[in-house]
Amino acid sequence: MHCMIRVLAIAAVLSATQSIFAQDSLPSWHNTAPKQSIIDFVEKVTKEGSPDFVPTADRVAVFDNDGCLWCENPVPFQVAYVLDELKRRAPLEPALNADPMVQAALAGDLGKLLEGKHYDGLMHIIAITHAGMTTQEFHSRVQDWLKVAKHPRFEKAYTDLTYQPMQELLRYLRANGFKTFIVSGGGADFMRVFSEDVYGIEPENVVGSTGRVKFEFRDGKPVLVKTLDHLFVDDKEGKPAGIHQFIGRRPIACFGNSDGDQAMLEYTTIGNPRPSFGLIVHHTDAEREYAYDANPKSSGKLTTALDAAKKHGWTVVDMKADWKTVWK
Amino acid sequence: MHCMIRVLAIAAVLSATQSIFAQDSLPSWHNTAPKQSIIDFVEKVTKEGSPDFVPTADRVAVFDNDGCLWCENPVPFQVAYVLDELKRRAPLEPALNADPMVQAALAGDLGKLLEGKHYDGLMHIIAITHAGMTTQEFHSRVQDWLKVAKHPRFEKAYTDLTYQPMQELLRYLRANGFKTFIVSGGGADFMRVFSEDVYGIEPENVVGSTGRVKFEFRDGKPVLVKTLDHLFVDDKEGKPAGIHQFIGRRPIACFGNSDGDQAMLEYTTIGNPRPSFGLIVHHTDAEREYAYDANPKSSGKLTTALDAAKKHGWTVVDMKADWKTVWK
Repeated sequence: MHCMIRVLAIAAVLSATQSIFAQDSLPSWHNTAPKQSIIDFVEKVTKEGSPDFVPTADRVAVFDNDGCLWCENPVPFQVAYVLDELKRRAPLEPALNADPMVQAALAGDLGKLLEGKHYDGLMHIIAITHAGMTTQEFHSRVQDWLKVAKHPRFEKAYTDLTYQPMQELLRYLRANGFKTFIVSGGGADFMRVFSEDVYGIEPENVVGSTGRVKFEFRDGKPVLVKTLDHLFVDDKEGKPAGIHQFIGRRPIACFGNSDGDQAMLEYTTIGNPRPSFGLIVHHTDAEREYAYDANPKSSGKLTTALDAAKKHGWTVVDMKADWKTVWK
Repeated sequence: MHCMIRVLAIAAVLSATQSIFAQDSLPSWHNTAPKQSIIDFVEKVTKEGSPDFVPTADRVAVFDNDGCLWCENPVPFQVAYVLDELKRRAPLEPALNADPMVQAALAGDLGKLLEGKHYDGLMHIIAITHAGMTTQEFHSRVQDWLKVAKHPRFEKAYTDLTYQPMQELLRYLRANGFKTFIVSGGGADFMRVFSEDVYGIEPENVVGSTGRVKFEFRDGKPVLVKTLDHLFVDDKEGKPAGIHQFIGRRPIACFGNSDGDQAMLEYTTIGNPRPSFGLIVHHTDAEREYAYDANPKSSGKLTTALDAAKKHGWTVVDMKADWKTVWK
């Protein structure tokens, strides 16, 4: 074949491949309205010359983590870490073992931990497991835990309990020039242990609840020691604030699953000079995952945000009806 | 020419071009020790198969801004903004005009502004110009100021007073797979107005001093209002803390120019399991720029960090001797 023709032929094959890829880039989504709304939005903002075109620099997409990218039941996985870590440490540390709140946690007495206006017991055991050690020690402990811990119902590693449709969505957006960020109430230090391996989201693109760290020298080497002093709680109205403080750009796409995500969905979609997109994952699938929303016992409440979705035209995913596959 | 040969020929030309580019990528640097130390480091960590090789994900380079990437005299440019902004607003706002600290600022009485342990007057006028407005209003005001403000000595826009050798260094590092971040005591909201245009550093890669913002609705639209509540002061020991909290990875290269950068230089280079590199820009050129270090009247003091440079093998740039060109 003539060289130029061969080059053109290769180009044509590549182009066809890309187009097929675009059509198939969300294979775990049923061909229902949510999938179409995602594709319509992405095609709209990436079409050069269109009035809706958004330059790649401004294609910022933010995702909640618990209940949006991975499962959050029967307890948020970071709480599972706290409980397992107390179990691991209690036999080794007599003072810890004698702590009444640690005993309540080990006995499964969540009621006692949640007493008081500020959930004092829970805060206490979070502090025990999240402060006092260096950032590197914390990182290693979470890493070790993730290797062995199993979800009580699904008997899989927690990092295997991410949603395949959302994984496809992350890749589809990145393939279309979006930058993807996590904006979650979970701890930034906790999520950064696995975000790059599990979601392809780099540590610097993870915004989460953040504690102050203290710079000091130990054995002649600089370390950062985690403290109890809260820098920033990344939930509810804290989410748009965190987006500004840590990312510095207004997103054009926002994905959540609870009332805690409402403020960042509003910030993304109301009065944004750019075209914008909001989506809520509604947990409706007790068989394959969990079904919950206004149930006060469930992890992430979804009440006002569901009303707001109607008002503001956010896409609502019915997990049972819209997802072919749930797990990665 | 046979197709395969042609492809190989093109590849050879491209490869040769890249190699020439590598040799010439720091043309504003004299061929003195600092330039060589930079190139040696970059070649070492990018050489695949070598024990010093660092994967691109971990090639994190952090730069101070004032006095490292751009000039910081006769006053840090953000202070120039504060003073110009008071001049602009005082005739329009009677209450502001009557404020004794505003009057001191307008009269150039810096002594009065710096009275008190916490520089109360200075803090007060920073507050007036940095809080109470929405993030968008602040952004527009800084943008407008940058368009018209001129440096008193060089009579150029402030954004034209960046250092050409450092601009080349930023590009050289990025061409070699580094991610470049600003880690500066300056305000994050202030620097993010120009960081992408001026340095090619995206807003999300700017770590700076940060005030809390408050999410609220104005005229039915969500806005973020800047407050006086300090989230985070990104100076001295705050710099390695900020690197952890905002970036979440330990840098392998760090560039600064004052004692305020010492802690992040230490965090980067001491006990780092990766190969690492530290550099200090020493302002020695009163003719082309400024000469200062231990002078208490100068903006950025450089005393202990210069001693630490000797001890830890950091590269010290003698601006007068090592830079062919100063300005971009």
